Amino acid sequence: MRVKLTLEYDGTNYCGWQRQPNGMTIQEKIEECYFAALGEKVTITASGRTDSGVHARCQVAHFDTQKGIPAEKFCSILNVVLPEDIRVLSSTEVDESFHARYGVKKKTYTYRFYCSQFIRPLYNRYATRINEGVDVEKMQSACKLLIGKHDFKAFSSSGSSIKGTERELYFAQVEKEREIIAITVTGSGFLYNMVRIIAGTLLEIGFGKLDEGNITKAFETLDRSLLGKTVAPNGLTMEKVEY
Amino acid sequence: MRVKLTLEYDGTNYCGWQRQPNGMTIQEKIEECYFAALGEKVTITASGRTDSGVHARCQVAHFDTQKGIPAEKFCSILNVVLPEDIRVLSSTEVDESFHARYGVKKKTYTYRFYCSQFIRPLYNRYATRINEGVDVEKMQSACKLLIGKHDFKAFSSSGSSIKGTERELYFAQVEKEREIIAITVTGSGFLYNMVRIIAGTLLEIGFGKLDEGNITKAFETLDRSLLGKTVAPNGLTMEKVEY
Repeated sequence: MRVKLTLEYDGTNYCGWQRQPNGMTIQEKIEECYFAALGEKVTITASGRTDSGVHARCQVAHFDTQKGIPAEKFCSILNVVLPEDIRVLSSTEVDESFHARYGVKKKTYTYRFYCSQFIRPLYNRYATRINEGVDVEKMQSACKLLIGKHDFKAFSSSGSSIKGTERELYFAQVEKEREIIAITVTGSGFLYNMVRIIAGTLLEIGFGKLDEGNITKAFETLDRSLLGKTVAPNGLTMEKVEY
Repeated sequence: MRVKLTLEYDGTNYCGWQRQPNGMTIQEKIEECYFAALGEKVTITASGRTDSGVHARCQVAHFDTQKGIPAEKFCSILNVVLPEDIRVLSSTEVDESFHARYGVKKKTYTYRFYCSQFIRPLYNRYATRINEGVDVEKMQSACKLLIGKHDFKAFSSSGSSIKGTERELYFAQVEKEREIIAITVTGSGFLYNMVRIIAGTLLEIGFGKLDEGNITKAFETLDRSLLGKTVAPNGLTMEKVEY
């Protein structure tokens, strides 16, 4: 039986989603807890990796089990053994054709900055500090240029070796509420570090260091150096995955 | 010279404000960092203790120094040595007659619950989980009874040995935004655990286990057992101190 999990996690204390030799990851922690509770070894496949320190309000994953337990039960079984910074919000039986990664239609991420001269302890876990004086309207205007089908190669980190780099952005929004600036993007898929580079680019546009021309030119020339920095992971949250 | 500090902290990893033998406190951490940076032993006096796990968006404190450094400098000096979960937002010179504790005119606290069947990792640090189905309008109506001058003895934990237990509440509000219920109270002062007992009482009224009569009767009889539980510390944040 294939089971779909909806997960929420605080990524602060993990080296991202995917298993790796140098530190505990979300995937490893869930697989370990699953084994501890059920004595079955499973591989849990997510909609996509999240990097070290990135959070998820909604991550979707699947695994195959021989246990014969009703799918809904995995949710409460796993929550008994999982640490409090990872939670299964639901577990449901799905068709064998469901694949958490290949079946994704849309993903939504939000990147949060907070404006302050100092680190603010009550914001700093889920948002990245920036100085005051950013022009939010400039960011709002520039983010509209991202919507649509583009070659986002310039918006990805050089380490990545993906073939196609065309992606479609359906939605992009910049909102400010008190000290928090939230950048929300929905797209068909995202390249490695793409949201963090989008956020870094919009930020530098907001500070007048870059302008909208950098985005249009980056789509033409695919030149990473035209864009802003890859901003810190703690401001990023995976908000939604749709199939 | 007397210096007034405005502080923000995430109380998760501390045993409250006040120095004590069994674990690191906010006061001890700041005094330690101050000594490490400046080689001077000072005692830092806050507007009031916060308990283990309680946060502050605005805590006010003072200390006396012989250093002869401009008061504004202490802010940046301390922020270099403090851990990221404690920050000095401002440091200013004040008259010797200023006292962070005795001079308080008003304090504001917010207690946050979130409604969910499960622990939600992205809410759980600054809010306390409750089940769904609470009647927020009942909580809103009941919180109005708290406003005014009352003997709040029933709203304090039995361990406390304070003489006068009359306090005045100037403001009390219950707001719901998405899954978060925020209870905000402003008062002349608060007894030990008073905000957490107010929150616990309003919660049980919201769930229909208690009603408004419990509050009015508790003011008359001063009987703690008429009221709700002292809810968990992580949902509590000191928001403002006025002089």
